[in-house]
Amino acid sequence: MKRKLFRVFILGLVLFFAGPVNAQTVDSLPSWNDGKAKQSIIDFVTRVTENGSPDFVPPAERIAVFDNDGTLWAERPMYFQLLFALERVKALAPQHPEWKDTEPFASLLEGDVEGAMADGMKSVVEIVMATHAGMTTAEFETIVKDWIATARHPTTGRLYTEMVYQPMLELLAYLRANDFKTFIVSGGGIEFMRPWAERVYGIPPEQVIGSSIKVEYELRDGAPVLVRLPEIDFYDDKEAKPVAIHQQIGRRPIAAFGNSDGDLQMLQWTTAGDGPRFALYVHHTDGEREWAYDREASMGRLDKGLDQAQAQGWTLVDMKQDWKVIYLD
Amino acid sequence: MKRKLFRVFILGLVLFFAGPVNAQTVDSLPSWNDGKAKQSIIDFVTRVTENGSPDFVPPAERIAVFDNDGTLWAERPMYFQLLFALERVKALAPQHPEWKDTEPFASLLEGDVEGAMADGMKSVVEIVMATHAGMTTAEFETIVKDWIATARHPTTGRLYTEMVYQPMLELLAYLRANDFKTFIVSGGGIEFMRPWAERVYGIPPEQVIGSSIKVEYELRDGAPVLVRLPEIDFYDDKEAKPVAIHQQIGRRPIAAFGNSDGDLQMLQWTTAGDGPRFALYVHHTDGEREWAYDREASMGRLDKGLDQAQAQGWTLVDMKQDWKVIYLD
Repeated sequence: MKRKLFRVFILGLVLFFAGPVNAQTVDSLPSWNDGKAKQSIIDFVTRVTENGSPDFVPPAERIAVFDNDGTLWAERPMYFQLLFALERVKALAPQHPEWKDTEPFASLLEGDVEGAMADGMKSVVEIVMATHAGMTTAEFETIVKDWIATARHPTTGRLYTEMVYQPMLELLAYLRANDFKTFIVSGGGIEFMRPWAERVYGIPPEQVIGSSIKVEYELRDGAPVLVRLPEIDFYDDKEAKPVAIHQQIGRRPIAAFGNSDGDLQMLQWTTAGDGPRFALYVHHTDGEREWAYDREASMGRLDKGLDQAQAQGWTLVDMKQDWKVIYLD
Repeated sequence: MKRKLFRVFILGLVLFFAGPVNAQTVDSLPSWNDGKAKQSIIDFVTRVTENGSPDFVPPAERIAVFDNDGTLWAERPMYFQLLFALERVKALAPQHPEWKDTEPFASLLEGDVEGAMADGMKSVVEIVMATHAGMTTAEFETIVKDWIATARHPTTGRLYTEMVYQPMLELLAYLRANDFKTFIVSGGGIEFMRPWAERVYGIPPEQVIGSSIKVEYELRDGAPVLVRLPEIDFYDDKEAKPVAIHQQIGRRPIAAFGNSDGDLQMLQWTTAGDGPRFALYVHHTDGEREWAYDREASMGRLDKGLDQAQAQGWTLVDMKQDWKVIYLD
């Protein structure tokens, strides 16, 4: 105990004689090139955190929300959760001989992903229900953990968690260092993200919001379990994102980060609040180091959002120009 | 800046010469009488927080969940949210002439609360839908804030927020001082609790879980609003509590606090996890200072839960014996 107090005493001495630290000399966003995007982030954070600033926001209200697919990690050739589901279909096929004659499974098992997706959202829902339900929440968590630890991306050969954007990881850490509470608000499944979001993003499970299926409480041999049912509970996209933010956070964020039209309402809801607000779109402009797509994309389309960003003066991140690196090597 | 550093310097000096503080001499639960209940709380917190303890739990996993009605504040003569709804019916009656001939409103407006509740849950839902929906979330928040700031309890004459249990406030603070994250998991409406839970309980909106009605995103004159719809989204009671905990926290709590059979599944789910777990029931035994009720109560019934608490060795708080005061004067 004495030793600890002695340290405090020495710390007091050192700080007293060292004088104020110049915070500006440390670059919290080293993977960001200097430019408008980086500067807009720093300016906003400074405005809302500096004591005496007319735009000061108390720490409890510094809520920042992030989309996941295409904003924090990549989403090509398709959402990674879909790649997970496709692999699950193959793994489960021996227990489902009927899938050989049932769409979308039949096409999938023949390797025809496009054919399987012919019915769009309907196909996706069927594949998700068949692969994400019918087990306990603990069992599903184990399946996700195993997959995320071993599965590799079809073209980069990387683990999926090695395809998170390094500049965005720095941004998350920078915001938290400034007493922001960071949330994910994703169209992806909550239970698909939670098993690794804390380790990879530093975002704890209770700050992961997303789509969900219904679960049911059940006693099995006297022990309670939660069973995942093949029924959509909440699809967290577009207009549903502000709804989810309201229901689960209950406070309007002051900063929102997305990359597609699916995030537009979240950015609108965030910026419509009083006081200082920040909205940022990641624009996928880097066909060499990542992928280039926007208005014509079938997944992660950025069309109306691009117009809005320009009209409203939101920050647009040009991945090619603004990011020194995409992934950490 | 210099002045702040000088304070750190002085603090170091003072601490260095003051010698070690004996943590045991500070009573974090001064409104609790010494006894089994108080000791069980302190023992549990010590076990999970002491460095080197075999039962040590990392701070991020120190999740504690609290029921609200009857656990953190009183619930007699009926849930306070129902009293709020009844007053809203009276306030809204002039705009609803048809209520004079429609149950449950007709009975209510004649002062016959029991008659209005004749259809049980169905009556409650109709009253809640008529009074809690059809407005924006911001409008509803204002209504709740006005009511909670001015309305008084029919028999004690206190503000409702003056009917929170002082021993439980100390318990919340004690847990948070030990790096627990405290959540409300209530059958009451999320939007009824959030406007005051942070001020009264120190629990921020994002840690308030409860029942909810559906809300819809809408643009009004170009500005986004969320409109409350007359449709139940989630009724957070019994089996639904572990479901809500899973969906919104995503981590199994290590401690759970309730007062009725509606909390039983939450306590079972909490204690069924691995490692150290804590479950506590507040038993309403004090007919003089508060109310005495358990197995026969229509609201806040504690029957199966009482048996379980005894069988499982959960902590049972005898309000009359264990609490020095109920409310702060």
